[in-house]
Amino acid sequence: MARAITLFTGQWADLPLAKLAEKASAWGFDGLELACWGDHFEVDKALSQDGYVKSRWDILNRHHLKCVAISNHLAGQCVCDAIDARHQRILPPRLWGNGEPEGVRRRCAQEMIDTAKAAKLFGVNIVNGFTGSQVWGKFYFFPPTSQADIDEGYRDFAGRWLPILDAFKAQGVRFGLEVHPTEIAYDVYTARRALEAVKGHPSFCFNFDPSHFIHQFLNPVYFIQECGDRLVHVHVKDSRVQLNGRNSILSSHLDFGDPRRGWDFVSPGHGDVKWDPIIRALNRAGYKGPLSIEWEDSGMDRDWGAPEALAMIRKQDFTASAVAFDAAFASKG
Amino acid sequence: MARAITLFTGQWADLPLAKLAEKASAWGFDGLELACWGDHFEVDKALSQDGYVKSRWDILNRHHLKCVAISNHLAGQCVCDAIDARHQRILPPRLWGNGEPEGVRRRCAQEMIDTAKAAKLFGVNIVNGFTGSQVWGKFYFFPPTSQADIDEGYRDFAGRWLPILDAFKAQGVRFGLEVHPTEIAYDVYTARRALEAVKGHPSFCFNFDPSHFIHQFLNPVYFIQECGDRLVHVHVKDSRVQLNGRNSILSSHLDFGDPRRGWDFVSPGHGDVKWDPIIRALNRAGYKGPLSIEWEDSGMDRDWGAPEALAMIRKQDFTASAVAFDAAFASKG
Amino acid sequence: MARAITLFTGQWADLPLAKLAEKASAWGFDGLELACWGDHFEVDKALSQDGYVKSRWDILNRHHLKCVAISNHLAGQCVCDAIDARHQRILPPRLWGNGEPEGVRRRCAQEMIDTAKAAKLFGVNIVNGFTGSQVWGKFYFFPPTSQADIDEGYRDFAGRWLPILDAFKAQGVRFGLEVHPTEIAYDVYTARRALEAVKGHPSFCFNFDPSHFIHQFLNPVYFIQECGDRLVHVHVKDSRVQLNGRNSILSSHLDFGDPRRGWDFVSPGHGDVKWDPIIRALNRAGYKGPLSIEWEDSGMDRDWGAPEALAMIRKQDFTASAVAFDAAFASKG
Amino acid sequence: MARAITLFTGQWADLPLAKLAEKASAWGFDGLELACWGDHFEVDKALSQDGYVKSRWDILNRHHLKCVAISNHLAGQCVCDAIDARHQRILPPRLWGNGEPEGVRRRCAQEMIDTAKAAKLFGVNIVNGFTGSQVWGKFYFFPPTSQADIDEGYRDFAGRWLPILDAFKAQGVRFGLEVHPTEIAYDVYTARRALEAVKGHPSFCFNFDPSHFIHQFLNPVYFIQECGDRLVHVHVKDSRVQLNGRNSILSSHLDFGDPRRGWDFVSPGHGDVKWDPIIRALNRAGYKGPLSIEWEDSGMDRDWGAPEALAMIRKQDFTASAVAFDAAFASKG
Amino acid sequence: MARAITLFTGQWADLPLAKLAEKASAWGFDGLELACWGDHFEVDKALSQDGYVKSRWDILNRHHLKCVAISNHLAGQCVCDAIDARHQRILPPRLWGNGEPEGVRRRCAQEMIDTAKAAKLFGVNIVNGFTGSQVWGKFYFFPPTSQADIDEGYRDFAGRWLPILDAFKAQGVRFGLEVHPTEIAYDVYTARRALEAVKGHPSFCFNFDPSHFIHQFLNPVYFIQECGDRLVHVHVKDSRVQLNGRNSILSSHLDFGDPRRGWDFVSPGHGDVKWDPIIRALNRAGYKGPLSIEWEDSGMDRDWGAPEALAMIRKQDFTASAVAFDAAFASKG
Amino acid sequence: MARAITLFTGQWADLPLAKLAEKASAWGFDGLELACWGDHFEVDKALSQDGYVKSRWDILNRHHLKCVAISNHLAGQCVCDAIDARHQRILPPRLWGNGEPEGVRRRCAQEMIDTAKAAKLFGVNIVNGFTGSQVWGKFYFFPPTSQADIDEGYRDFAGRWLPILDAFKAQGVRFGLEVHPTEIAYDVYTARRALEAVKGHPSFCFNFDPSHFIHQFLNPVYFIQECGDRLVHVHVKDSRVQLNGRNSILSSHLDFGDPRRGWDFVSPGHGDVKWDPIIRALNRAGYKGPLSIEWEDSGMDRDWGAPEALAMIRKQDFTASAVAFDAAFASKG
Repeated sequence: MARAITLFTGQWADLPLAKLAEKASAWGFDGLELACWGDHFEVDKALSQDGYVKSRWDILNRHHLKCVAISNHLAGQCVCDAIDARHQRILPPRLWGNGEPEGVRRRCAQEMIDTAKAAKLFGVNIVNGFTGSQVWGKFYFFPPTSQADIDEGYRDFAGRWLPILDAFKAQGVRFGLEVHPTEIAYDVYTARRALEAVKGHPSFCFNFDPSHFIHQFLNPVYFIQECGDRLVHVHVKDSRVQLNGRNSILSSHLDFGDPRRGWDFVSPGHGDVKWDPIIRALNRAGYKGPLSIEWEDSGMDRDWGAPEALAMIRKQDFTASAVAFDAAFASKG
Repeated sequence: MARAITLFTGQWADLPLAKLAEKASAWGFDGLELACWGDHFEVDKALSQDGYVKSRWDILNRHHLKCVAISNHLAGQCVCDAIDARHQRILPPRLWGNGEPEGVRRRCAQEMIDTAKAAKLFGVNIVNGFTGSQVWGKFYFFPPTSQADIDEGYRDFAGRWLPILDAFKAQGVRFGLEVHPTEIAYDVYTARRALEAVKGHPSFCFNFDPSHFIHQFLNPVYFIQECGDRLVHVHVKDSRVQLNGRNSILSSHLDFGDPRRGWDFVSPGHGDVKWDPIIRALNRAGYKGPLSIEWEDSGMDRDWGAPEALAMIRKQDFTASAVAFDAAFASKG
Repeated sequence: MARAITLFTGQWADLPLAKLAEKASAWGFDGLELACWGDHFEVDKALSQDGYVKSRWDILNRHHLKCVAISNHLAGQCVCDAIDARHQRILPPRLWGNGEPEGVRRRCAQEMIDTAKAAKLFGVNIVNGFTGSQVWGKFYFFPPTSQADIDEGYRDFAGRWLPILDAFKAQGVRFGLEVHPTEIAYDVYTARRALEAVKGHPSFCFNFDPSHFIHQFLNPVYFIQECGDRLVHVHVKDSRVQLNGRNSILSSHLDFGDPRRGWDFVSPGHGDVKWDPIIRALNRAGYKGPLSIEWEDSGMDRDWGAPEALAMIRKQDFTASAVAFDAAFASKG
Repeated sequence: MARAITLFTGQWADLPLAKLAEKASAWGFDGLELACWGDHFEVDKALSQDGYVKSRWDILNRHHLKCVAISNHLAGQCVCDAIDARHQRILPPRLWGNGEPEGVRRRCAQEMIDTAKAAKLFGVNIVNGFTGSQVWGKFYFFPPTSQADIDEGYRDFAGRWLPILDAFKAQGVRFGLEVHPTEIAYDVYTARRALEAVKGHPSFCFNFDPSHFIHQFLNPVYFIQECGDRLVHVHVKDSRVQLNGRNSILSSHLDFGDPRRGWDFVSPGHGDVKWDPIIRALNRAGYKGPLSIEWEDSGMDRDWGAPEALAMIRKQDFTASAVAFDAAFASKG
Repeated sequence: MARAITLFTGQWADLPLAKLAEKASAWGFDGLELACWGDHFEVDKALSQDGYVKSRWDILNRHHLKCVAISNHLAGQCVCDAIDARHQRILPPRLWGNGEPEGVRRRCAQEMIDTAKAAKLFGVNIVNGFTGSQVWGKFYFFPPTSQADIDEGYRDFAGRWLPILDAFKAQGVRFGLEVHPTEIAYDVYTARRALEAVKGHPSFCFNFDPSHFIHQFLNPVYFIQECGDRLVHVHVKDSRVQLNGRNSILSSHLDFGDPRRGWDFVSPGHGDVKWDPIIRALNRAGYKGPLSIEWEDSGMDRDWGAPEALAMIRKQDFTASAVAFDAAFASKG
Repeated sequence: MARAITLFTGQWADLPLAKLAEKASAWGFDGLELACWGDHFEVDKALSQDGYVKSRWDILNRHHLKCVAISNHLAGQCVCDAIDARHQRILPPRLWGNGEPEGVRRRCAQEMIDTAKAAKLFGVNIVNGFTGSQVWGKFYFFPPTSQADIDEGYRDFAGRWLPILDAFKAQGVRFGLEVHPTEIAYDVYTARRALEAVKGHPSFCFNFDPSHFIHQFLNPVYFIQECGDRLVHVHVKDSRVQLNGRNSILSSHLDFGDPRRGWDFVSPGHGDVKWDPIIRALNRAGYKGPLSIEWEDSGMDRDWGAPEALAMIRKQDFTASAVAFDAAFASKG
């Protein structure tokens, strides 16, 4: 049976949910993965306003859209990061407060706990998001960086997230970290290290998004093979390496959409992600959740691209084989 | 005429200069590029102790070794960086002081000015090194990072380095920034941006080191083509991409020498740097300075590798053509 | 005019023909290539039971399906092979008998003669299949294997198959060997050697199937170029090389469908076969027969895959040009 | 808004325009780019016969087809070429005359001026075409060829074309040189040299056709990046490199369509052109003109291929993004 | 400290040991790996003739040659194989006997036990060799082959080799299986399966030879990483993939040395083996044994090639690093 | 036995032979291939001046240099070419005369006949050179070019060269056409067509030079395989493809040595030619003549490069195997 195809609303936060739901439904999406920003899913209102949660379902139901996951990348990012001016721009004033770093980190940690509660109220049991990281920016190892330095960063992560994860567990909600540069885990090795840091906490899971692996030259299939038992959600997002000897894979401090960059995000199906092997790996891993399109392409009109991406992934989402051909042959006669 | 082949002493700072000079001379090196750490070239002593500078030359002369450049990467790194515990480990107590970040940055800026003075006293007019950077760690652009954010980092760099560069100019010494991730410039685009930030200051030059371009997938020849007029020094160092779909080009927070890394430094001649096109480009750019081996390979004995690297690069260092074959043919008859 | 697209029934032998015909017709196939196992086309019944042949046509006609070829790979395989327990599993008891190898080989040789007779009765003049081989397993040449050893294997093949081929000729039926590892011919060189061994017998032809060339790193187009005059049938089947440095192109004695294998069969259009150059080569060779989908993919539901493969190949099956552009331009004026 | 998709009529000159227009309209094309040969658009009649121009529009209008450009490659080719017997075959007798080379060149130069006049009368302001070249055949530089030799060729080009370009300007029509081997410009470097030769004449523009870059191993996107401000027209044509170690990229004096050639033209979508990056580059360059399919494939029926190519390029012609994702994210909260 | 470079005598069995030792010594080899065929090391004489063992050492000592391993590939091959005429050609009459397969296998199993005894007498504790395999030829899995079939082959191997391995253990000698197509283990997966079949018997070890991995597209480094603790010996042998779309990686039943083959053995340094990463992996695995050149190249004079190969590998055999550069940097100041 | 390594003097014609011979001998060359321009070998003097031929041998003998071939590319080029100003620069006045094209062609044809006579007098039986071509410049096939047009060019070639080849045959001298763009043959297909045009004239042979195949993407080994029976001479020359998406394989009318070119000649060993497979192919073809270094590299000092190239090719020139390893193994026991 085919999986549900949903649209992640994070890149459409400039549109009210009512309008976006109408569009997505008209394009043929099966559901939405609501972002906890814009007016799509507001955690504070969900916990404080009667009828808020129902208001979200009313909109969804009106357009026959499912919702099995919400996402709170922005608050999650601030839980472990060294806070700077950029974080202010992604947080509402109630979380930013006076901007004192440790205060920001603590308020955002609490916000993640609240997000789990709001998810429970809303009736979904997956919250995707980011963790931030104290050590991400040290990846190049100069000034010389010891494994002790890195271990300290993973301890910091565990110290801040274990209480959050316990709260998730209490709500019966799982956290799906989107494995991504800038986060505590961005590839298989760091995903394992993060898992070890939280001692394999049952609520610590992954939101698989291959677009973040392509420009690291990782094969997304290997991630599914090694971490498939922790997959709770899948993003359909694509990226493309466009190296030419003049541009760096590190992107030269150039904006997304600048053609001089060494890689960029593109509409699903237009990049280097190979979907067939991913579908096979998801089938083997037994993943039955949605394929959620996170649409981002600085060179394409999103209203042109989103329905095209939907059609693309629907055509790719095949089911596993029910027969073994060897056996079939062997029983012939 | 062949270029001088020198050895950068930075990776041998555990050996006293007298011992290293003896080794290098025996291996056949033409000279040394002295690091401003260990006892190789101590800036404070050069400026404060009579006879210190002469003591360095005595060692060099005893072994018939030239010196045309000194290097101070460690102090330079601290001029613009956000200071953390790792910086303490690369600085002497007199520069670290109480570790208050802005104080560290200012003392290191003064140290770079002093390095130029010491160089002049020592009789060399090139100081190689690093700059540090306020924006390096923001290269991934999440949380969303605007060009205004990045511009601010380049302004910070210019504000801190222009006084240093003026002091260099006053001494008739040029600064050779080793273009390198973690620095204000790590590829052609950022090298240009840095140059613009300091309005093309005549003392702001480059130490070309191809090993830092390989794992960014940059063609080192393009750097020489575009920045050749600012080359004052060349490092012969090598690196190798060893991607396999499981490891990240961002290296997964794994130590140098760990075979799981996506790339690593290797002895010159054992990596992905192609020296022939680099020699051609240096010939076209009119570079006549030394080829200075910066030897670093976590998987090879350095006493085995350094003389091998010397032999390798000597064989590659050919001179440009004096004749035009077209013209030669055309005048035949 | 577009070619007929048929479905080879060999991988569907667990379904009765009546049911499969209904499915294939609903999916839009033009016809079937009947396997001589399961109940699809039973050679013994065709020769011994009145009305059997008509019963097959009744099923086909009911669903408006063509049939231009039948296939008997399993009996053919046993004509030259060293017989072991695996052969018992692919043969009916009447052919296996007591399993004494030479007896099995002889009964299967007779079965192939009977297949030609049954084909004639059924009204088709192509029988696809395998030959088996005495020397296939010696391809690695250790223990040291001389060309005399190999020649002996080709003589054995000729000795066993020439009488069969003569019988085919007498019926006006051609044999289409599916060029394939485990057979007497698996690439261009061995196809030629086999042809020479049977002195170019006019009934010895080929069933072209590119999926068996891909993992040998053969370009299927070259096979068509060199053996195009012997092509009587074409299989549309696909395979994919999935090497990663850890798995062997020889597949490590791992099952089809095991993701650790170095290559595997996949649904047509999902693998490494490039169909456009093959269609061009078939057009140049003048091949007008069917494109017969042999559907095998251990990671995909066959009911999902077969109609997708049909749509894929229909879109690819273009006709040759009727005009020469050079001439067109030259006559303009 | 999507661009118009037109069909270049040059390869269909054996069909009367009325018949071709009917076909193209039925296939769904938005318009035609008329060739100045066959009966499609006859320059001499346009200037001399009342009603000729209207007769062309009548045909187009009857089929609801647009026309924004006409093309005169054949006469243009003869303006600078060394004239030989092949040129006679592409010219009408009135232009060939007695075949004396300089006379042919002058008559063809006048024909190009007349083409601009006819375009104006017809109501289009773009004429695509070729220039010919005195130096094309000298590209290999043996016998030794100096830059002075080449400069002389570009001077010859400028001398012959500046009067033509002035006449174009007087009519308000721009010339779109199809950058192409055999012409004065065939890549970025030669396009720039040609532009310099005519001192950047405002009527000297380019008809971009990626099929001519592929077999030169040029990235078509770079052409758009560097010459985008001179693009007046775009051809959708494709080619494929089919090297195998035995055939030369120079094509061995073998006919188009000969499978032994090192490259060949193929129906758009079947070759090595990657359309997505081209569309992005055209979007960045602000190109709003038509995408004109020049259909040529010696191995495919043109009536099969042309509508397939139309469908292919319509699916690719996406519009640029109206939002900046960075900004979008940054304003969330 | 550099490893000893020895020459495997198997490909020189047409020369008496006395002559070969003289040559090898003159070329500069440090020792020999004696083959148990020709007159190099005769197992039966070693066990039965007084002074035979000493006679071998006399020859070796006369030329200052070491010996740390002997090899008996030919008898080993016959322990598990289906015996055919080719095996007769590699066995002496005393082992072939009447050629009845099971008898041959048993005599060869006893010969391997005797080889261990002879090794002990001779004073070496490594015997390299082959095992043969009942299932090698079934690798393609047609006729359909179940994992039960393969398991049966591994059980057969264990049944025949466990008594041999016990005898090895009793002598304090280890068996080094050369991992190789035609053997029970030819890649990492089958090496593990073989190890499991003999329940990790301590005398079952590996002779690493990268030439057998190259044409399977295996990365030899991965074998060392995964089986490094079982490495007792290393062959320096090379092979080259020479695919061109016309030839098969399965080699088309063509002789070694035939340029039409898809791969072939070549003199070490002339093929696709990359020695630097292998040396690094051996260093990491702590391998201190010899690098033994197995010289085989059907296109090169062996007297030309063997000393060249010796010089090549000596230059590559570098030692591991004694310092950690990170630590070095970190302690600078 | 190793082949003689000679130096082709064509690129050193600015030096008097006496000086060049001294250099070449000091570098260790075994001999020279004399160019028929400069003062190296003057055809007119050889035929008209007593003692001229001896004077050449005196110089050679004084330096212990062999000579087995002379070369006359420049006169040969003018036999079939369309003559233009460039040809004047490569011809002496006595051949250029008044420059009337047909007169130039006829005088150069006679000069080639005289070259054969001079070679005979000088005691060598190979003359290498070029043929020129009437159709080279038409290779792109636009304006549309028919096979009849090309056939006419090959007829012109045959008409002009058959008398020359007959004269060669009369002298017992063979002509070695250097297969090369700008000539009648530049790859395998055109070499065959040229051979057919002269009906396989026994004096029409080839001078193999791989540098001219590399940038056409031809595998030089295939040329040897297919034309090996016509090889009379071999040039050791190298070239390198340096494509980057911006430059054309057709070289953009840029000078040799311009780094923007798509390919360029480089010193042997510095380019893309793989010598090992060429040596194997020459061994199989039974070629026993010299390996003659044609040294041309616009980016390297020729006095640096020539001896390096000599050392490079001497190390590569291995002899074929005298033993068959299969047979060797098979006879062991």
